[in-house]
Amino acid sequence: MKAAVGAVILQLRDKIGFPYTMVPIDAYMYGGAGIGGWGVLCGAPNGAAAAMNYVLPSRAVVDELCYELLGWYAETSLPSNLHDSYAKYPGQTQSVAGSPLCHASVSIWCRESGFGESSAERKDRCAKLTGDCAAKAVELLNAYFDGKFAKTYKVSATTASCQGCHVGKDSMLDNSLTHMDCTPCHGDPHK
Amino acid sequence: MKAAVGAVILQLRDKIGFPYTMVPIDAYMYGGAGIGGWGVLCGAPNGAAAAMNYVLPSRAVVDELCYELLGWYAETSLPSNLHDSYAKYPGQTQSVAGSPLCHASVSIWCRESGFGESSAERKDRCAKLTGDCAAKAVELLNAYFDGKFAKTYKVSATTASCQGCHVGKDSMLDNSLTHMDCTPCHGDPHK
Repeated sequence: MKAAVGAVILQLRDKIGFPYTMVPIDAYMYGGAGIGGWGVLCGAPNGAAAAMNYVLPSRAVVDELCYELLGWYAETSLPSNLHDSYAKYPGQTQSVAGSPLCHASVSIWCRESGFGESSAERKDRCAKLTGDCAAKAVELLNAYFDGKFAKTYKVSATTASCQGCHVGKDSMLDNSLTHMDCTPCHGDPHK
Repeated sequence: MKAAVGAVILQLRDKIGFPYTMVPIDAYMYGGAGIGGWGVLCGAPNGAAAAMNYVLPSRAVVDELCYELLGWYAETSLPSNLHDSYAKYPGQTQSVAGSPLCHASVSIWCRESGFGESSAERKDRCAKLTGDCAAKAVELLNAYFDGKFAKTYKVSATTASCQGCHVGKDSMLDNSLTHMDCTPCHGDPHK
């Protein structure tokens, strides 16, 4: 988490200076490993979202760009190969987390790469992915300030169908809140 | 998220002053609704963890107290009734989220209370729960600085059995990372 915040904010310190010189980057240590080893929200999008919050004008805009950031995280094959020229482990296996959960992201990468969660390779993979999230945040911020930001992430057709009844004040049941893919945890709960 | 950060940090501003006067509380708007409506990590523990990070001496200690905070969140019937003397909706239904996920926390409360996610009652419930998380963070911090903090949260026996093979460098497979309860999403994957 701290690395994602730092990657964005240190650039802003260099290019703009104050008030980004005041951002307490060490205050974002807590988000690593999905907080306290719980594997909930991946620290990389948690930190990238925190960094975007410093730059954007309102909660509504923060929510829009964060929606997109988490959607991108869920559906993108990571880590990118943009780190290969300097990374300790270039050419690593890429995998799609399917959600913004650290637990899913790490477990799927371990399965597809064959490396253990405690391995140096896994740590390098998460470091690269953190850089990728920071870069995505900057891309989203640049698009926003160029007047070119548009939501592009769409949930799967199945999840959209679930949301139609369960999510939102105009839905029939209005009894849930998420954009995570429903099927991995719930299967087909109506069969 | 912002409310949990503020509840802790504004107390520290009043009682100690600098450096807590420098904490950018508005920088924590982004964590509401599990970030961008995604329902991933509940913003209340995200903010309470962020607040604890400002006070504690190292990442290792932050991780220990955050582990406990998220465990408490997962297993505690919330919101507490400590808000009843001033709340708009006193005596609300309490429910156990079973995980630190906003999605689970909100959906289970909606099911048990009968109120919609978009209802004013649900918003009041989440506001109270945010106060409860801030109070828990203060309780953990006080215990730590009194030398009385001890980890008490234990995962379920089933999850401990799963972790025995899947989580940690000394486990057979070392291919996952979480303290979330395995059964709600995975059932019995070995049957």
